[in-house]
Amino acid sequence: MELKEHLDRPTSGWSRGTGPDADVVVSSRVRLARNIANIRFPSRQSPEEATEVLTLAERAVGILGDDWDFYRLAPLTAPDRRVLVEKHLISPQLARQPQAAAVAMSHDERSSLMVNEEDHLRLQVMEPGRNLPQAWQEANAMDDRLEADLEYAFEPDLGYLTACPTNLGTGMRASAMVHLPVLVMSGRVGALLQAVTKIGYAVRGMYGEGTDAVGNLFQVSNQRTLGMSEEEIVAHLDQVLGQVIQAERESRHELRNQSPDHLADRVGRAYGILRGARLLTTAEAMRLISDIRLGIALGMLPEIDYATVNALLVICRSGYLARVAGRELPAAERDVLRARLVREHLQRAEAAAGGR
Amino acid sequence: MELKEHLDRPTSGWSRGTGPDADVVVSSRVRLARNIANIRFPSRQSPEEATEVLTLAERAVGILGDDWDFYRLAPLTAPDRRVLVEKHLISPQLARQPQAAAVAMSHDERSSLMVNEEDHLRLQVMEPGRNLPQAWQEANAMDDRLEADLEYAFEPDLGYLTACPTNLGTGMRASAMVHLPVLVMSGRVGALLQAVTKIGYAVRGMYGEGTDAVGNLFQVSNQRTLGMSEEEIVAHLDQVLGQVIQAERESRHELRNQSPDHLADRVGRAYGILRGARLLTTAEAMRLISDIRLGIALGMLPEIDYATVNALLVICRSGYLARVAGRELPAAERDVLRARLVREHLQRAEAAAGGR
Repeated sequence: MELKEHLDRPTSGWSRGTGPDADVVVSSRVRLARNIANIRFPSRQSPEEATEVLTLAERAVGILGDDWDFYRLAPLTAPDRRVLVEKHLISPQLARQPQAAAVAMSHDERSSLMVNEEDHLRLQVMEPGRNLPQAWQEANAMDDRLEADLEYAFEPDLGYLTACPTNLGTGMRASAMVHLPVLVMSGRVGALLQAVTKIGYAVRGMYGEGTDAVGNLFQVSNQRTLGMSEEEIVAHLDQVLGQVIQAERESRHELRNQSPDHLADRVGRAYGILRGARLLTTAEAMRLISDIRLGIALGMLPEIDYATVNALLVICRSGYLARVAGRELPAAERDVLRARLVREHLQRAEAAAGGR
Repeated sequence: MELKEHLDRPTSGWSRGTGPDADVVVSSRVRLARNIANIRFPSRQSPEEATEVLTLAERAVGILGDDWDFYRLAPLTAPDRRVLVEKHLISPQLARQPQAAAVAMSHDERSSLMVNEEDHLRLQVMEPGRNLPQAWQEANAMDDRLEADLEYAFEPDLGYLTACPTNLGTGMRASAMVHLPVLVMSGRVGALLQAVTKIGYAVRGMYGEGTDAVGNLFQVSNQRTLGMSEEEIVAHLDQVLGQVIQAERESRHELRNQSPDHLADRVGRAYGILRGARLLTTAEAMRLISDIRLGIALGMLPEIDYATVNALLVICRSGYLARVAGRELPAAERDVLRARLVREHLQRAEAAAGGR
């Protein structure tokens, strides 16, 4: 499959689907850090070693099957690399150092592999909704198949060796993207996330800088990678997710009882503005997208679904816009194009819903 | 025709049509004040005289033909009387003193007659767009037919006698409702309307109190009724209208050249909010309706037309809302119902446009 096809479509396998508890959990992700034995970590490796890693990785991806393709990042334009970041297929760090870097992915983009990021290999599986155990199983199966071809750096007492000691052991990071609009609205999100942090989980805004949660989207992930099995990590994080889901749902229930008209008005206006605006900044678009995701969760917007809003999160972003335009755009032109693409996307979704 | 039918439909003959220069001129109106000879003016008449006027008026309306009906206001609820005001069929003053009052109207509501307002009779013809000469011709024909049955109070040197001396002579008030959103936006409307006032025309906001022009709708009317023929009054006012139209069009042209995206955004958002909101105050609704009327004028909203927005002006108002609800509503409930009726009206208009 041509990389172009991946870059052109704003959806991924995970983002088109709907998983359990999709009213709060957008996606679940498991990432495994792996390094090839006897080659130095990317930050210290020689150009020859970097090339060797690329060669070995490409060969190993070959055995993952016809469903996989391997793409070097060096030939890509900066906006195209950004699109890969916007689709959660590579990290911003990898996009910034494309020379000896590559990404491999399955056709549906649910599984992917970064090469020469902080570690030689970073395997990732993303699933829609609250689906950590399945993401782990798939990542584990993928890992087994790669390990049949590659010799990993592994120590019996330390587990998988990683560039950063925080990844030692399982090399695993499990995370979920959660949408907490009403906890944010009610001001309760701070206390909840503080509690989650205290028991050993990291929480950050999914988009934007620092802890600012653009679009009310947060990522919750495990911190510990050592001294626990992968299954334990996944089970614990899943429990935490259960509590986060409950807290958000209770807040929604309360808000709906207290101000049903204001809630419906907020959702209806957000949809109307996204459908009608001719200028949209990222900040406004993300705020409105959050409102309509909430509307879907509350059954207020039958004409669209989670897949529609998931795609909007990519469509709105500067890399994707630059790709559609064929060039980097100044902010004012981005706002015009963003509004147009959002409008057209919603029109198509409505037409599809009308035809159902 | 039952009065109920008039009260239930938010449209009138004039508001469903499109006349010349409809991009700026919403409607043209000619009103004639007439009194019956040898009966005192309403402010001074006895109950018997009031009844006599009603009886004479009802008989005279009978000869206007099958297309006409005569309705006494006394049995109507206050909200229903307000609907007649909102549809421009009677004045607020008549609605406040319904005891000996009546209204007659043609089925399409383009012609109507108030009985026992400030004068015994007030004939009115409303036409869509810039159409003063036709409104005058129809009012004149209606007047001739009534005069065949009634003896008017008339003095050769003073013309028609009226309760207020400002109406003496022709007893005619010609007016036009004009939509000046961009002159308001650019702050130029003040100077223009001052100039119009200086040459002898009255300008006021069409809705709301005093000179505040809710929805950017203004009424321009003649002040002089004496010493000029009806044709002269109409021709002069029509000239003034031509200048007002030109000024507004030039401002629109300029704005469109300077900020096409912002203009399109403003119109698109207004439409989106009217389509999506679940709570709408009158003030916001009138502001948004002004924006979409401008959008229609600029060809930006092919899914709706002037008839759609004309009906919204009635749908949004408290009398009509109370009629739909079957009772007077508190403000919060009005905002919910207003939003629902506006939304449904636009949906129907879109569906009709889709079917064209």
